[in-house]
Amino acid sequence: MQNFNYCNPTKLLFGKGKIAAISREIPADTRLLVTYGSGSIKANGVYDQVSQALAGREWFEFGGIEPNPCYETLMGAVELVRKQSITMLLAVGGGSVADGTKFIAAAVGFEGDPWEILSRQAPVRSALPLGVVITLPATGSESNGFAVISRKATQEKLSFGSPLCFPRFAVLDPDTTASLPRRQVANGVVDAFIHTMEQYMTYPAANALQDRLAEGILLTLLEIGPKVVLPEPDYDTRAELMWSATLALNGLIGCGVPQDWSTHHIGHELTAVYGLDHAQTLAVALPGVLRNRKAEKREKLLQYAGRIWGLTDGSPDERIETAIARTEAFFQSLGVPTRLSAYGVDVANAPETIAARLEARGDRTLGERGSITPAVVREILATRL
Amino acid sequence: MQNFNYCNPTKLLFGKGKIAAISREIPADTRLLVTYGSGSIKANGVYDQVSQALAGREWFEFGGIEPNPCYETLMGAVELVRKQSITMLLAVGGGSVADGTKFIAAAVGFEGDPWEILSRQAPVRSALPLGVVITLPATGSESNGFAVISRKATQEKLSFGSPLCFPRFAVLDPDTTASLPRRQVANGVVDAFIHTMEQYMTYPAANALQDRLAEGILLTLLEIGPKVVLPEPDYDTRAELMWSATLALNGLIGCGVPQDWSTHHIGHELTAVYGLDHAQTLAVALPGVLRNRKAEKREKLLQYAGRIWGLTDGSPDERIETAIARTEAFFQSLGVPTRLSAYGVDVANAPETIAARLEARGDRTLGERGSITPAVVREILATRL
Repeated sequence: MQNFNYCNPTKLLFGKGKIAAISREIPADTRLLVTYGSGSIKANGVYDQVSQALAGREWFEFGGIEPNPCYETLMGAVELVRKQSITMLLAVGGGSVADGTKFIAAAVGFEGDPWEILSRQAPVRSALPLGVVITLPATGSESNGFAVISRKATQEKLSFGSPLCFPRFAVLDPDTTASLPRRQVANGVVDAFIHTMEQYMTYPAANALQDRLAEGILLTLLEIGPKVVLPEPDYDTRAELMWSATLALNGLIGCGVPQDWSTHHIGHELTAVYGLDHAQTLAVALPGVLRNRKAEKREKLLQYAGRIWGLTDGSPDERIETAIARTEAFFQSLGVPTRLSAYGVDVANAPETIAARLEARGDRTLGERGSITPAVVREILATRL
Repeated sequence: MQNFNYCNPTKLLFGKGKIAAISREIPADTRLLVTYGSGSIKANGVYDQVSQALAGREWFEFGGIEPNPCYETLMGAVELVRKQSITMLLAVGGGSVADGTKFIAAAVGFEGDPWEILSRQAPVRSALPLGVVITLPATGSESNGFAVISRKATQEKLSFGSPLCFPRFAVLDPDTTASLPRRQVANGVVDAFIHTMEQYMTYPAANALQDRLAEGILLTLLEIGPKVVLPEPDYDTRAELMWSATLALNGLIGCGVPQDWSTHHIGHELTAVYGLDHAQTLAVALPGVLRNRKAEKREKLLQYAGRIWGLTDGSPDERIETAIARTEAFFQSLGVPTRLSAYGVDVANAPETIAARLEARGDRTLGERGSITPAVVREILATRL
């Protein structure tokens, strides 16, 4: 097992009615800014629950944080924070609102242009404390220090992370997810599945327990995936998705293991250029990455085929191909297409466009072995049209 | 899934050479007390590593914390802490040293007789900060807020827990376990296995992912158990045991699930009266609890038989009995007997003695359904002679 440090200080408040508990987590003298997205929280009652929990306090709000939250939008919130001397942030929404709020938290005290936190990974030396009420189980952002931010002007989508950006607390009430559209729920399943795969599907490195934990998340998502995308899934099924999404990216399963993340790098570019949902890009890229890197990932692909898909018959190559095909079919069964053409992308140019962007950014050695060059990305995407 | 809150703020420093990093985790102006046990850390080089890491600081030490750490001993440390105005504690040793140090941390500022923290679960309102260098993978104490303390004078063994007693940091260097005697390693495997079982082997309660995580720990322990008790187990095998023991009792797998802990209650009494090692008592009690509560635990026992032991043939009752028998055989294969007579216990009186002690303490409704009365404990132990 590789050496690692791990600390996840976020206090999780999981379950029915937990929004009511946020007041105890926010000091009385706080000048609070509540951040949210398109306003779906006003339609589904979550905004009202938050308002009730904050009754008797003065608080401010900043709505309109978009999916793939934009630097341009978020800098508006930074201005409001400064103007109103805000001392704490409460993100209410999905991963985009949580990510955007982390950027606001880090940008407020940043000396210089906060874009440098993303563009040159400038160190975050201070951040406002933040809490999260997560309403879309997918990214795990409610319990990690990472954020992915886009910039409209330059068509960029970049990530940063800081221990200072772990939420102080996160409310995970599965009831808040009852009104989610099927597309977002399906995206959440794919997202959590592929977050797990990025930390699992590499090479054997003496990670017996870590492999079991990752496999546990994958098996759970396979079990609940088909049910959670049906109309009106029950509470427990939604709770499993919420908990799986958190554990897929709260850092735990990444401890001491080699990690890939090439699917994410490719996916971020696909979102930046063509506007696909994050999970859609992952569902497109992953099968291509797995097939292309079959030799490097051979032992883990065989383990995956056996433990996740129960494949014991056939040659090793057949089992690997079947496992990848079933993975792809699983995404499709949720209603998430796995080919670029299904999303109206200009497929003739996409492989070259994405490869050139990675090349230009200097992302030349993706994957757990650093072997995925822009040329390999071009090959991979040529199989995903 | 049941509602839950979860926060584990302990920073884990896992791997080779990590003791050297403790200095960064201890503020420069700290008046530090290093606590330890029988002195094995002086024989195996751990004391020297800690000394080197603390070079240039003034620090104090308190050795002699025994297995099943004693109130009487620990109050001596409390006196030293007060006399020397100690501001932080560093436990170096196994679970007993970590547990004992948590009690010291909580007792120092307690108004009144600190034994009340245990005897009447008096709330802990302050505690000194502490760190842990864990050298015996077993209890998970390095990453939770719990402690079990014994009192010689009254032959009691009681537990307490407080969020204030989570270690600030914990070093888990598998190299520190290289010189452990086989008995302690075997105890560690049994301990971690049964900690997991207490949080898993109850009844179905919509815990798909939680079940998978617990099963992941059990499968890992079954895989590495036979290897880790051999002479000179390799680093990675010891690392798996260390990581499994931490995850078995850092609170994670207990989130949102029914829990049993009757095996522990019975075990603590067996240690208090007959002096068995903690893990030995668990290995004795668990098979009896499982057989006696077979009807209540039927669905989970069948799941356990299938997923952990791969049992698919035979009647449900046969599969359950085989799974329990194999569990017992696993403990025995590690060198941990599962019958009281193997430990020289006065078997004629043990069932009655232990049942009477639980009755006297008011522990009348053990187990996840509160159905394990002292009379049931008597029945259980009568099958474990």
